[in-house]
Amino acid sequence: MNEKMRQLGTSPSAIRELFEYGKKRKAEIGEDNVFDFSIGNPSVPSPQVVNETLKYLIDNTEATKLHGYTSAVGDLNVRKAIKEYLNNKYNCNANESLIYLTAGAAASLTITLNAIINPGDEVIVLAPYFPEYKVFSEKANATVKVVNCNFDTFIPDFELLKTSISPKTKAVFINYPNNPTGVVLSKEDMAKLANVLKSAQEAFNSTIYLISDEPYRELVYGDIEVPYVTNYYDNTIVCYSFSKSLSLPGERIGYILVSSSCTKAADVYFAICGAGRSLGYVCAPALFQYMIPYCLGHTTDISVYEANRNILYDELTSYGYNVVKPDGAFYIFVKALEDDAVAFSKKAKEYELLLVPSDSFGIKGYVRISYCVTNKQVKDSLPSFKKLIESYKGD
Amino acid sequence: MNEKMRQLGTSPSAIRELFEYGKKRKAEIGEDNVFDFSIGNPSVPSPQVVNETLKYLIDNTEATKLHGYTSAVGDLNVRKAIKEYLNNKYNCNANESLIYLTAGAAASLTITLNAIINPGDEVIVLAPYFPEYKVFSEKANATVKVVNCNFDTFIPDFELLKTSISPKTKAVFINYPNNPTGVVLSKEDMAKLANVLKSAQEAFNSTIYLISDEPYRELVYGDIEVPYVTNYYDNTIVCYSFSKSLSLPGERIGYILVSSSCTKAADVYFAICGAGRSLGYVCAPALFQYMIPYCLGHTTDISVYEANRNILYDELTSYGYNVVKPDGAFYIFVKALEDDAVAFSKKAKEYELLLVPSDSFGIKGYVRISYCVTNKQVKDSLPSFKKLIESYKGD
Repeated sequence: MNEKMRQLGTSPSAIRELFEYGKKRKAEIGEDNVFDFSIGNPSVPSPQVVNETLKYLIDNTEATKLHGYTSAVGDLNVRKAIKEYLNNKYNCNANESLIYLTAGAAASLTITLNAIINPGDEVIVLAPYFPEYKVFSEKANATVKVVNCNFDTFIPDFELLKTSISPKTKAVFINYPNNPTGVVLSKEDMAKLANVLKSAQEAFNSTIYLISDEPYRELVYGDIEVPYVTNYYDNTIVCYSFSKSLSLPGERIGYILVSSSCTKAADVYFAICGAGRSLGYVCAPALFQYMIPYCLGHTTDISVYEANRNILYDELTSYGYNVVKPDGAFYIFVKALEDDAVAFSKKAKEYELLLVPSDSFGIKGYVRISYCVTNKQVKDSLPSFKKLIESYKGD
Repeated sequence: MNEKMRQLGTSPSAIRELFEYGKKRKAEIGEDNVFDFSIGNPSVPSPQVVNETLKYLIDNTEATKLHGYTSAVGDLNVRKAIKEYLNNKYNCNANESLIYLTAGAAASLTITLNAIINPGDEVIVLAPYFPEYKVFSEKANATVKVVNCNFDTFIPDFELLKTSISPKTKAVFINYPNNPTGVVLSKEDMAKLANVLKSAQEAFNSTIYLISDEPYRELVYGDIEVPYVTNYYDNTIVCYSFSKSLSLPGERIGYILVSSSCTKAADVYFAICGAGRSLGYVCAPALFQYMIPYCLGHTTDISVYEANRNILYDELTSYGYNVVKPDGAFYIFVKALEDDAVAFSKKAKEYELLLVPSDSFGIKGYVRISYCVTNKQVKDSLPSFKKLIESYKGD
């Protein structure tokens, strides 16, 4: 067999490992006594429109159509509905002929990578980053270069990015609202990023794709706006998922959008079709494709997440933790209280707090709190966070 | 971008191309006047239990569970239900820890290939074969060797297979009931095939996986039995899909089963987990996973297909066509009336018959009729088949 694949399958991600530990620990000491902040599995149910639409479709669509193959790129009417929604909301000149429905964000990313990468190509990830970017990129034969963000803000270090791009750079990943930091890029910073890439393309006479991984686009708090990336940079490929906005991560439904201004956009789209085909993605799940037009613009009740964000940010800061305030997603990134984040995460376990060490995200010295849990769980966890920091003060 | 992927995306399969032609032609001369036998999209609706179960699950399951992530390998209870069903039916010693739920047969195949193949490995396909085997294998870095069947029966030529296996052979694909011939392997032939592989493993001190692609397992007619492959050969990996048995090819749900007797079965399973992860398959669609235990053992009304098989076989034979009687699936493979199957398919178009030339299936001189259409469509097409053969007799 393939040894690399075996190793990958044998060693689950640190996130999954902690999550499994949590399940065991809950069985030992009770569900309510473990504060599992390990995984991004939404605790807020899908908006009612999701289940209502599914039942409506089941009752009112011919079964051979409802459950039959769609076009490999996805049902035309669904793609048109997405186009219209995006153009109304972001004025982004989306085109249904450049939208490809997928089985969620992970599929969007692997299909995109396999479409654009040739062996020897480099991709840049901005640390801290979602760990699977590395897994997906390496499987697609890309070499991964990690470029650190500015640690005061978790905004890209544009100077460092500039000097890190080489003639071999085929793509740069961005992910705002960000996993694991919750940070959102402002319009000004988005423009700066676009300028860095444009200059590099000119300098190297190359094409650099900006892969925008957007499962958290709608999960923002207050009056934060997430810039629509194709409006800033032409060679953008958006990898979207409905997993978090509609709380259906298990159903695997999302899309790839190639910017209408992308160089050779139609060819990139064809390569996406070829990659999807050769990876075995025949079409995105049909029932959930047909659900999309009814659910565009709806989200789960994100006020739950916003309340969690506010409680955690305010309280942790007041206890003395060092935190950058997240604008979106359901993650908060906390400076560990000792250099070794793995040791810190282990220490936190003593207080029944399950926090993911930042090592998996490509940097050292932080932990990620995934707060897509109930408000009660967050409130109940606060004394443990207090005791944890006090245990360090006592040193 | 990746040129190979672009080409793959630009050139749809011959099947898809004919299917698209059919859609256009129907718009021109009317739905009922085109006999589209191009594609395997079931015309028989899912059994009622499918939609009833979906609605029951929606109404009676907590939404965060119903639509949430399952374990990457699939929900444990679902895997246990599959195990029990298979063991009751085939007495095959299936184990839920070696079952991995997937997004359909194509995903089962790509994940399996990426799990077992190392660059330089060979896989053997038995012609005529399902064209995507080549696409999937090459993407997984395997070299594809085509071994012809016996053309009188479309049963493997065991002597030829024996001499075609090399020390580099990592896997052999089988697919019974077969696409495109409809042939099923008897127990005796299954045992012969297993013996060829066992001898080769011993001779080369190698492991050769038998990949059994089984989307048509339940679609058999009369008293035909399809041998359960793990009972004949230890290093078997079954790639199953519910697409055809339950008429839901668009929903993408199936599984991989590693034989409990497979060499290093647990490691093969881990490699499957790693491959699934790195190709972006986070989990099989959750709602359709939970549907499985309610639907095991149910099938669509296959009497429609059986009637089509009987009409086509009897009539085409009586007109003078050369056909091997299919025992299953919904395909019948017909000798072309001239050497060039592409020219024959073109000629058939003049009679509004859409028949796929065998060149896509790796051999010359035949066409595939996909008869998963209504009985009426089959009956209405008969005069055209008669005229087609008469046009050749007139030569």
